[in-house]
Amino acid sequence: MRIILTGYTGHMGREVRTCAEAAENCEIVAGVDLMIPASEGICVKTFEECTAEADVIIDFSHHSMTGELLDFAEAKKLPVVLATTGQTEEEKARIREAAKKIPIFLAANYSLGIATLTDLVKRAAALYPDSEIEIVEQHHDRKLDAPSGTALSLFNAIKEVRPEATANCGRSGQGKRTKDEVGIHAIRMGNIVGIHEVMISTQNERISLKHEAFGRGVFAEGSLKAAAFLAGKKPGMYDMKDMLNA
Amino acid sequence: MRIILTGYTGHMGREVRTCAEAAENCEIVAGVDLMIPASEGICVKTFEECTAEADVIIDFSHHSMTGELLDFAEAKKLPVVLATTGQTEEEKARIREAAKKIPIFLAANYSLGIATLTDLVKRAAALYPDSEIEIVEQHHDRKLDAPSGTALSLFNAIKEVRPEATANCGRSGQGKRTKDEVGIHAIRMGNIVGIHEVMISTQNERISLKHEAFGRGVFAEGSLKAAAFLAGKKPGMYDMKDMLNA
Amino acid sequence: MRIILTGYTGHMGREVRTCAEAAENCEIVAGVDLMIPASEGICVKTFEECTAEADVIIDFSHHSMTGELLDFAEAKKLPVVLATTGQTEEEKARIREAAKKIPIFLAANYSLGIATLTDLVKRAAALYPDSEIEIVEQHHDRKLDAPSGTALSLFNAIKEVRPEATANCGRSGQGKRTKDEVGIHAIRMGNIVGIHEVMISTQNERISLKHEAFGRGVFAEGSLKAAAFLAGKKPGMYDMKDMLNA
Amino acid sequence: MRIILTGYTGHMGREVRTCAEAAENCEIVAGVDLMIPASEGICVKTFEECTAEADVIIDFSHHSMTGELLDFAEAKKLPVVLATTGQTEEEKARIREAAKKIPIFLAANYSLGIATLTDLVKRAAALYPDSEIEIVEQHHDRKLDAPSGTALSLFNAIKEVRPEATANCGRSGQGKRTKDEVGIHAIRMGNIVGIHEVMISTQNERISLKHEAFGRGVFAEGSLKAAAFLAGKKPGMYDMKDMLNA
Repeated sequence: MRIILTGYTGHMGREVRTCAEAAENCEIVAGVDLMIPASEGICVKTFEECTAEADVIIDFSHHSMTGELLDFAEAKKLPVVLATTGQTEEEKARIREAAKKIPIFLAANYSLGIATLTDLVKRAAALYPDSEIEIVEQHHDRKLDAPSGTALSLFNAIKEVRPEATANCGRSGQGKRTKDEVGIHAIRMGNIVGIHEVMISTQNERISLKHEAFGRGVFAEGSLKAAAFLAGKKPGMYDMKDMLNA
Repeated sequence: MRIILTGYTGHMGREVRTCAEAAENCEIVAGVDLMIPASEGICVKTFEECTAEADVIIDFSHHSMTGELLDFAEAKKLPVVLATTGQTEEEKARIREAAKKIPIFLAANYSLGIATLTDLVKRAAALYPDSEIEIVEQHHDRKLDAPSGTALSLFNAIKEVRPEATANCGRSGQGKRTKDEVGIHAIRMGNIVGIHEVMISTQNERISLKHEAFGRGVFAEGSLKAAAFLAGKKPGMYDMKDMLNA
Repeated sequence: MRIILTGYTGHMGREVRTCAEAAENCEIVAGVDLMIPASEGICVKTFEECTAEADVIIDFSHHSMTGELLDFAEAKKLPVVLATTGQTEEEKARIREAAKKIPIFLAANYSLGIATLTDLVKRAAALYPDSEIEIVEQHHDRKLDAPSGTALSLFNAIKEVRPEATANCGRSGQGKRTKDEVGIHAIRMGNIVGIHEVMISTQNERISLKHEAFGRGVFAEGSLKAAAFLAGKKPGMYDMKDMLNA
Repeated sequence: MRIILTGYTGHMGREVRTCAEAAENCEIVAGVDLMIPASEGICVKTFEECTAEADVIIDFSHHSMTGELLDFAEAKKLPVVLATTGQTEEEKARIREAAKKIPIFLAANYSLGIATLTDLVKRAAALYPDSEIEIVEQHHDRKLDAPSGTALSLFNAIKEVRPEATANCGRSGQGKRTKDEVGIHAIRMGNIVGIHEVMISTQNERISLKHEAFGRGVFAEGSLKAAAFLAGKKPGMYDMKDMLNA
C-alpha cells in the first residue's frame, strides 16, 4: 500500500511514519505539509508538487485543508482516510460531496480498540438487560473535560440498547443508585494516554471491559488499518463500525 | 414459573431458593431431596411423593439421580435444567434419549457471565487477528487444578478463531514470547470465588475482558435464567450459547 | 483464648463463630443474646446467666446494651472488643469510664486491611510530596452515601501528610485538575462488599494501593485479632492503629 | 542544581534532558558523549573539554567509561549518580574507592516508585504474617526473562520479613497451594513499559500494591531525584532505600 501522508512533519504524522515502517506492505511515498519551510525529500509543501503514484491518502493535517485535499483526491481518484477533527458544516458538506466520487473513511477516534470496546459493550449490555452499569475513564492531568468524549460516546452506545439509561457523571451525595443510572467517573492524573472501562454487574457477578492505549501510536495504527480497509471499496462514507464488521 | 428443585437442602439448593425468592415470577413449588430424613413441607424425599404442578425442574442433586429424574420429567412432560456434573457415559446417553422427548438444558458452568465473557473473547480475538493474548484466572487457595477448567475453556474458545494458538501455562524461564502463545496464569489465594480475565493486546493498545463472581449465587441465578429460557421450547439439548443468542 | 460473644445469633455473631472455629486457640465459651426466646446451650439471654470462665468479650450486639455489657465486664475484669456502632454521647462517656478499669478496643471498621491500607497510603503520600492522588471506592447498590465513610477517612489520612489536599467528590465538568485536588469516585453496583483504591501518580509512574473485602467475615476476623491483641494489656482505649504498630 | 550529563545524546540522555527542562531548579550545564562526531554546543566529546561549573554528574553513558568518569568527578569533587548497569568487578572496586572521596548514588533501578513499592510490600507482608502472597508482573513482548528481575527482587524483599517464603514461578499442574508459596506470574504482551503488582490476602480480604511505569521517563526522573539527594552529602555509597528514608 503506497500512502500519501498529509501533516507529514506533525506529531501524528511522525507516529504514522513510525507505524508504517514497522508494518508490512506499507510505504509512505509522499508527504504533504504546509508547515514546512520548503519541499525536501519526499515531503512537499503543496498538493501541486505531489506527483507520487499512490493508493491512498491519510490526512492528519488540519480541517481547514479539507477542501484542497479532496480536490486533489478526486482528481487522482484516491481514497482518503480523514483523521482531522473539528470540521465546519461547510467542510462536512464538501466531504459528503466527495464521498459520491471516492471512498472516504471518517472517524472521531481511530483507535480500533475503542471501536471494538464499543461493540463489545453494546453486546454485553444487551445480554444483561437488568444489569447495573458504571463507566470509569482515566486521562492525563491536562485534560479539560470530564468525563471524556469517548466515555460519553460509550454511554450513548449503551443507550442504543438500553434506552432508559441516564448518565450520572461524578456520583456524590446521599441516595440509593437507581437501576437505570450509569455512573461515569473521570480520573485525572499523571501522563495517562487514555483508559476506558465499562463495568456491567448483576447482584452476583460482574463483567468489566477495559481499553488502554499504551501510546498515541494507537491512532496511527488505526489510520493505517482504515487505509487498508478502503482498498477496492466503492465511493462512500466509511467508519470504524464498517471496518469492525468487515 | 413454578419450579421443582432437586438437591433442595444442599448448598446450591439453598442458593437457588434465595435467588428465586428475590426474583419476580419465580416460585419453588416443590423440593426433592434424597438426603433428608423425611419429607417435610414442600420438600419430599422421592419423586413419587412429588405431586406439585410445575413448569420446570432445576436439578442440583447428584449425577447418579439422573435416570430417576429423567423418568419423572418425561412422565410429567417437564423441561429440565441439569446442573449436576460428572455424568457417566451411560447417564449422558440417557440424557440424549430424554432430549428427544423434553427440552433439556445442560451446561458445565451456569454463570451467564462466563458464557458472555466467552462470547466477547471470541469476538475480540477475531477482530484482532494479530494480537497477543494472555489469560489470568484467580481462585481460592483450596483449588487443586491450575489453570482452572474455565480458563482452559476460554483458551479453547480462542482457538476456534485462532487455530494456531498454543497454551503456555505458567510462563517461566528465558526466551521471547511467540506471537501465537497464549500465556495462562493461575493466581491462588484467600477465598476468591472466581475471577477470569482475558487480555488482548497489540503494540499500542490492550483490551481486557474480565469476569468476577461475587458469590456462588451466580450459578443459581444462571440456572433460573436457563429454566425461563426452556419455557415453550421444543424437545432437544440446549446450552449457555443458545441462551445468549436467543 | 476463651471468648464471650454478644449478639451471638445475629449476622455478625455467626460470622465470628465461623471465624473462631477456623482459628487456632480460639473458643467461644458463651454467647449472650437478648434476641433469643430462651437460653439454650452456651447461649444465654442475659449477662446474669453468663457464668463461663473467659478471657475476653467481643461485642456485636447493639450500642444500647453498652452500659449493661460494661458493668458485666468490669465486674469480671474482662477486656472488651466493642464492635457496635452508633453509640450516644452518654454511652461514649460510659466507655471512657470503663477504659480506666479494663482494656477496651474500639474501632469504626474492624477490617485490619483497611487499617493497613490507611497506614500504607500515608507512607506513600509522604514519599511522593508532588504526586497527584485519586481515590476510587466500590460498594453494593443499596449503599446510601457516596463517597463511603472509609474513603473519606482515607482522604483525611492523606491530609495529615498533605495538609493542602482538597477533596473533589465526583469530578465532572470543565477545567484542569489542580495539583492538590484528590478526586474521590464512588462506584455503586451489584453486591460488592467493599473495595477501596488509592492511586498516587507522578507524570511518569503510578502506585495503586487497593483493599478488597471478600466477605463480611473480614470484620469478624479483625475483631478476633483485636481480642488477641488485648490479652495482657493495661486498662485503656485501643484502636486499629495500636494493633498495627504493636 | 547544575548537572553534567553523560550519555547526553543517548535514549536515556534525552529522557533526562526532557525531565530536567520540566523540573524547577534543574539545569543541564554540560553534556559528555563519546558517541558524537564532534563537540557541539554544551555537549562535548571528552571530559577534558568539560569545563562547566556544576553541582552533580548524572551518568547514563556506559559502564566502560566508569574509570574515566570517576577520575573526573574526584578531581572536580562532584557527587555522581551512576545509572549505568553491568559493571565489571574491577569497575565496582573503582566505584567503592571513589566513594571514599565523593558521594556516589548507585541503584539497579532508578524508579522511585519501585523503591516505594518494595518498602510498602515489606511493611504489608510483615503486618500480615499469615497471609498468602502472589506477584504479577507485566512487560513488553521483547523481554527475554520471566519473571522480571524486579519481581524477583520484590520476592527477596518479602523473604526478609517472611524467611520461610518460597517462589513458585508460573504455577501450573495439580496440588493445593502451600501457605509459604509466593506465586510469581509473568505477563508478556504489547509495548508495556513495566507493571508490578503484589497481592497479599487472607481468607477474607486482600491488599494489592501495584506500580505502573507510564514511560521510560520514570528512570530519568528518579536519577534527578537522586542527584538532588546527593547535594551536601558526605562521601559514601547511597541507594534508593537511603533516599526513601531521608
